[in-house]
Amino acid sequence: MRNIIVKKLDLPSIEERPVEIVERKGLGHPDSICDGIAESVSRALCKMYKEKFGTVLHHNTDQVELVGGHAYPKFGGGEMVGPIYILLSGRATMEIHDKEKNEVIKLPVSTVAVKAAKEYLKKVLRNADIDKDVIVDCRIGQGSVDLVDVFERQKNEVPLANDTSFGVGYAPLSTTEKLVLEIEKYLNSEELKKELPAVGEDIKVMGLREGKKITLTIAMAVVDKYVKNVEEYKKVIEEVRKRVEKIAKEIAKDYEVEVCINTADDYERESVFLTVIGTSAEMGDDGSVGRGNRVNGLITPFRPMSMEAASGKNPINHVGKIYNILANLIANDIAKLDGVKECYVRILSQIGKPIDQPKALDIEIITEEGYKLEDIEPKAKEIANKWLDNIMEVTEMIIEGKVTTF
Amino acid sequence: MRNIIVKKLDLPSIEERPVEIVERKGLGHPDSICDGIAESVSRALCKMYKEKFGTVLHHNTDQVELVGGHAYPKFGGGEMVGPIYILLSGRATMEIHDKEKNEVIKLPVSTVAVKAAKEYLKKVLRNADIDKDVIVDCRIGQGSVDLVDVFERQKNEVPLANDTSFGVGYAPLSTTEKLVLEIEKYLNSEELKKELPAVGEDIKVMGLREGKKITLTIAMAVVDKYVKNVEEYKKVIEEVRKRVEKIAKEIAKDYEVEVCINTADDYERESVFLTVIGTSAEMGDDGSVGRGNRVNGLITPFRPMSMEAASGKNPINHVGKIYNILANLIANDIAKLDGVKECYVRILSQIGKPIDQPKALDIEIITEEGYKLEDIEPKAKEIANKWLDNIMEVTEMIIEGKVTTF
Amino acid sequence: MRNIIVKKLDLPSIEERPVEIVERKGLGHPDSICDGIAESVSRALCKMYKEKFGTVLHHNTDQVELVGGHAYPKFGGGEMVGPIYILLSGRATMEIHDKEKNEVIKLPVSTVAVKAAKEYLKKVLRNADIDKDVIVDCRIGQGSVDLVDVFERQKNEVPLANDTSFGVGYAPLSTTEKLVLEIEKYLNSEELKKELPAVGEDIKVMGLREGKKITLTIAMAVVDKYVKNVEEYKKVIEEVRKRVEKIAKEIAKDYEVEVCINTADDYERESVFLTVIGTSAEMGDDGSVGRGNRVNGLITPFRPMSMEAASGKNPINHVGKIYNILANLIANDIAKLDGVKECYVRILSQIGKPIDQPKALDIEIITEEGYKLEDIEPKAKEIANKWLDNIMEVTEMIIEGKVTTF
Amino acid sequence: MRNIIVKKLDLPSIEERPVEIVERKGLGHPDSICDGIAESVSRALCKMYKEKFGTVLHHNTDQVELVGGHAYPKFGGGEMVGPIYILLSGRATMEIHDKEKNEVIKLPVSTVAVKAAKEYLKKVLRNADIDKDVIVDCRIGQGSVDLVDVFERQKNEVPLANDTSFGVGYAPLSTTEKLVLEIEKYLNSEELKKELPAVGEDIKVMGLREGKKITLTIAMAVVDKYVKNVEEYKKVIEEVRKRVEKIAKEIAKDYEVEVCINTADDYERESVFLTVIGTSAEMGDDGSVGRGNRVNGLITPFRPMSMEAASGKNPINHVGKIYNILANLIANDIAKLDGVKECYVRILSQIGKPIDQPKALDIEIITEEGYKLEDIEPKAKEIANKWLDNIMEVTEMIIEGKVTTF
Repeated sequence: MRNIIVKKLDLPSIEERPVEIVERKGLGHPDSICDGIAESVSRALCKMYKEKFGTVLHHNTDQVELVGGHAYPKFGGGEMVGPIYILLSGRATMEIHDKEKNEVIKLPVSTVAVKAAKEYLKKVLRNADIDKDVIVDCRIGQGSVDLVDVFERQKNEVPLANDTSFGVGYAPLSTTEKLVLEIEKYLNSEELKKELPAVGEDIKVMGLREGKKITLTIAMAVVDKYVKNVEEYKKVIEEVRKRVEKIAKEIAKDYEVEVCINTADDYERESVFLTVIGTSAEMGDDGSVGRGNRVNGLITPFRPMSMEAASGKNPINHVGKIYNILANLIANDIAKLDGVKECYVRILSQIGKPIDQPKALDIEIITEEGYKLEDIEPKAKEIANKWLDNIMEVTEMIIEGKVTTF
Repeated sequence: MRNIIVKKLDLPSIEERPVEIVERKGLGHPDSICDGIAESVSRALCKMYKEKFGTVLHHNTDQVELVGGHAYPKFGGGEMVGPIYILLSGRATMEIHDKEKNEVIKLPVSTVAVKAAKEYLKKVLRNADIDKDVIVDCRIGQGSVDLVDVFERQKNEVPLANDTSFGVGYAPLSTTEKLVLEIEKYLNSEELKKELPAVGEDIKVMGLREGKKITLTIAMAVVDKYVKNVEEYKKVIEEVRKRVEKIAKEIAKDYEVEVCINTADDYERESVFLTVIGTSAEMGDDGSVGRGNRVNGLITPFRPMSMEAASGKNPINHVGKIYNILANLIANDIAKLDGVKECYVRILSQIGKPIDQPKALDIEIITEEGYKLEDIEPKAKEIANKWLDNIMEVTEMIIEGKVTTF
Repeated sequence: MRNIIVKKLDLPSIEERPVEIVERKGLGHPDSICDGIAESVSRALCKMYKEKFGTVLHHNTDQVELVGGHAYPKFGGGEMVGPIYILLSGRATMEIHDKEKNEVIKLPVSTVAVKAAKEYLKKVLRNADIDKDVIVDCRIGQGSVDLVDVFERQKNEVPLANDTSFGVGYAPLSTTEKLVLEIEKYLNSEELKKELPAVGEDIKVMGLREGKKITLTIAMAVVDKYVKNVEEYKKVIEEVRKRVEKIAKEIAKDYEVEVCINTADDYERESVFLTVIGTSAEMGDDGSVGRGNRVNGLITPFRPMSMEAASGKNPINHVGKIYNILANLIANDIAKLDGVKECYVRILSQIGKPIDQPKALDIEIITEEGYKLEDIEPKAKEIANKWLDNIMEVTEMIIEGKVTTF
Repeated sequence: MRNIIVKKLDLPSIEERPVEIVERKGLGHPDSICDGIAESVSRALCKMYKEKFGTVLHHNTDQVELVGGHAYPKFGGGEMVGPIYILLSGRATMEIHDKEKNEVIKLPVSTVAVKAAKEYLKKVLRNADIDKDVIVDCRIGQGSVDLVDVFERQKNEVPLANDTSFGVGYAPLSTTEKLVLEIEKYLNSEELKKELPAVGEDIKVMGLREGKKITLTIAMAVVDKYVKNVEEYKKVIEEVRKRVEKIAKEIAKDYEVEVCINTADDYERESVFLTVIGTSAEMGDDGSVGRGNRVNGLITPFRPMSMEAASGKNPINHVGKIYNILANLIANDIAKLDGVKECYVRILSQIGKPIDQPKALDIEIITEEGYKLEDIEPKAKEIANKWLDNIMEVTEMIIEGKVTTF
């Protein structure tokens, strides 16, 4: 019997509250680059461990520090003069001691990590030459394990929580949240890049809703080689504005949406957000894991948030990572139940206990008018129990990249 | 006329809500070490700039990455075998161009930063030999400024916001929050270290309140050279428990408080939280700025929080830093007004506008029974206005270390 | 009138002396890798500077440190588990101050350097995946120059010596020297690698001549993926021995030559020089610029040598580099004159004087029997003068890679 | 029976040859700093190993890279703005596997190395604040050994040569050599620094002898805080010149000696060799192990030299280090024999053979007139044999710092 509590929340739903602030740091933002690398490295290590031993060994690669480079953008194409420096750290199992054979098996952790980081960068920073524009350094620390423990792990039992920690999640997304999320995704989509290659990957979208008015403030890097002059730059901005406004009309029909792009630009002085490779990381902006989006892809100060840096944490027993993702998965399913207007889920672990046995799993529900909590409660519990029963599938989803962590 | 809005919040206060989770990462936690270094570096740069030019020049040193070392603790005294590696990054004004004289003035940014980091470490990690146990590396990026801009800045006008960002604060602290904060402070106080030198600096306190019951889970490093064996270790733990329980009785009289210290310890196998220099950073635990405590010293997932990494940001125009601190200062003052049970403050900046002119300053108040918002509103506005009028004093308070950032 | 002195040397020639030791560290030796990178970086910077300004700006990139990686070779193919770390340092002109326009032009020094290093590595280490097996870091220091000085340099006048330094050279190579040089070249040639891909690039050849007997001791990395077992390994060694003996017969007809390859191998225990990527740098062997071959490609303790690390030095005014190369060029030409058995050239610079005006250029000649120095002297002087007259062509030869530096 | 050969050398002695070039890079020269650190680290590791196990374990720490800092010297006292970066690399035994107990003992290699480097720097760079002016980073690679091998080593048998390598030495020093050596030692002596604190530690002395004339070219850093203006700077230079001339008269009575100090200085433009901490490493000059002085403290292109970087190599079985030192020790003793004018010693190792059994030990002697080689030969052999018999004392001398390596 798990400690699952379902409560009614007597609050106005997020949409009914007067103000809302929502932010998303896009894929090319320095903090998101770090999140993405950290998670890519963890996933690559998971795959390497599974290939070699059929199970994932201990690691946490949630430490990536990006030190901005030096770039000299100019209309028509400038150049990178100093590379971005990226330090991978964290820890991973590098050695397996086979005590019977008196042997040590060494694992290619650092090479796999460096490779994964570069492959991720190649994918995300379309306009960079990773060979010269980025230095990827690695100080991932050593961990070791006994071969017997590896066998133990292969049995595939539910892992024990690594810490006393908690995760939070909620559903559904508010209109502003959906808007912010979808716009960044669109602006960083393959299709848009084909049509508007000048749009860089460093895109920060901030949504401020006051009543029925949403102000979208977008900071968007423009890639210099695709724009010959400030006129062309303006055209790119205007084209993006048009497209964003179109999406806004679809997603936020009932709202007045104002779109502000690169508000700090000064066309007269030609002081605009021009970049060589599409990210502010090229010119001194640093980044770090866990300082940007939460696992639902957003920063939402008007919603409950966890401080946990999920990206790069191991998906086996790191409850700080797993429970944040799980809380969102459960909330998403519950939110689809009839009568549920909004749902908040909090999961608290107990260090050393199986991760499918949290100390507490709290579900708070704002019901639709005319619905009773008593009717919803058993279904909500069922959903929670089902997810907990299959918690090791969450691990698989993470390894396969089917859920986001930032 | 500033856009200050005061609203009534029709919610149960935090104390009346059923559950509360509060966490504090103590001074010796790897994330807090990074926060502390980042802020020390910024403060040292501020002082250097002021000494040389009478004004603070641009910088953001909110990027510190700590890569854990290797230690071999043992009862009676083990040793560090591999140093902790700390990378300072961020950006700071290193050059001033005196265009009239065709001269460049270079500023000792990196040396000042390295020195400040080491001095902070010496203060916080009493048991470390900073000369051998820590490597402080520095990749702080270069910024430059024209001398005319330095003169401009010396005029001491209200700076312009560097970004569209926001800050949040609230007051008063709940009982659980106070408890968590005070216990860490006590355990890391000079007096306690004199009486119980075995207590390390890496202390994480987590408080879980369920109704009237508070469970305090404390993870606390013990310094090996002060404990000869597992018996002495146990004595230290018991002595600390006694003292914590005593404090708990004072601060949380009306609550049942359970104190759990180092719950993962296994005395039989002598597997305990033993360290050489008092922090888990000595053995592979990494750290980063902005992943731990918010500016009020706490992580409070049941309260509104900002993701901003305040430590190390410049205290002049970085609204992400200033507004978080300011929101707490304003909330604290308002909370002292008659009739205010709880107060939440949110401040939103507009990029490019003077920082004393926020786009919006929202005050939400839960009133005591029998009080009307109308009576409180003008006083609350007065408080907010006064703080905004004197916003540059906040900068001074930060530079002088009179407010915490983590 | 230059200070050129021609003297007769009354010594037995190198071939007539009883003992000779000659060594060559092949292209894949960690020290040679560093030399090669340093020189590649310098050449790439020269080209970049010339492309942008029509002239080479100041730089010295003769500092490369290679920290060995971690590899787990095994018959049939092992893997790299930790990458090789390579730190580029030195100094180069990164900024040009255009004082008239009050502008700073930034140059892509670090990105060009990193790219050049990787391209060189790709060429030399055929079996490495540079993306994962090597980390190239860069701390090349900043230098700046005034635009007026750039214009000055464009005038293409003879540069002034940067230091009081000297260069030495001699010709012809002794039989042992030729043998050592040619064997390494052959073993690292494209053709041999096609026929015997198992031969790695890390090849050290040491020749010890005692009277008419030459002992060649070759340490040669074997690439694991091309040899399935110790039998195949032995076959590779034997095949190489056969080929080396064949070359030895051609070059050193009059000598008895013994060839020893990988003498530390122990076939019983399968302890052999097996590598994953063909260099000992993969497994902890470090390297550095200037610790291996002199500019003639050899280490010759029985001949005069300069300590100068030529690779990576700027080819414009760094006399330590230019004079060592020049001394060999002059010696080579003089050695071809009738009656010259052996020739030694030493060139001493004076700091601040044009490099075509050395303080002294000493030529020592061992004459063939029946020849008089007086007859040779004017021709030798003519050769020296001609080379000094065209000293800036030496710079071009270096930039175009027509002369070796290691 | 050892293979010791004594031969007569029919050459003019060094003093009788027309030209001689001798150089010494003083203690504060960037290359010498690296040599000194490398050797200090090795010696500290030797002591640590001996303390823990009574024997020295395997290591080679002959890789130190120094990347110059940024300084802004000015008369009366400037400041360091960017620290010098020093990377320690190489390899050392960090782990001992006790297979019986199934345990791994970890050794404090990196912390001991970092500490030793800093202590050396504090001693050599009197005017630096090592806490802020220098960053010491460490990437020393891991080696491991079985406990049984440690026991084996404790038996104290003669170690086996690690490589096929050789060492060279000669004696006595020529007048020019003595002069160059003694002047640097004097200028870097405690006594002189007390009397003339303005004299920095970065002192390069080059001696060019042409017949009976010696030109001493000295490049000497001056410490800015001790000289208020160019006048005081000139006084320091003049005072040093006087003292050097005095020493020259004592050591080189029969020679005309010209002393040139800081010849590139331009007093008019106040462009002089002024430094903040007394070394050119403060302002972009890089350094590396093995690029400066040979084990006798000199660079002597007119004498046989080894390329070996002795500093930092292990003193147990690294013949490249031991044989160079040994060759000088033997040459020194032989040079004291009656009738010996000059003596050259070359020792060649065989990989895998005991180091007291070199493959060949060649002694070449230039005899005084009236002496026969036959009379000297047996004494010379005796000297060589005695040193080889006691070769493990050489190791002790190295560990205790009784012989120099650079």
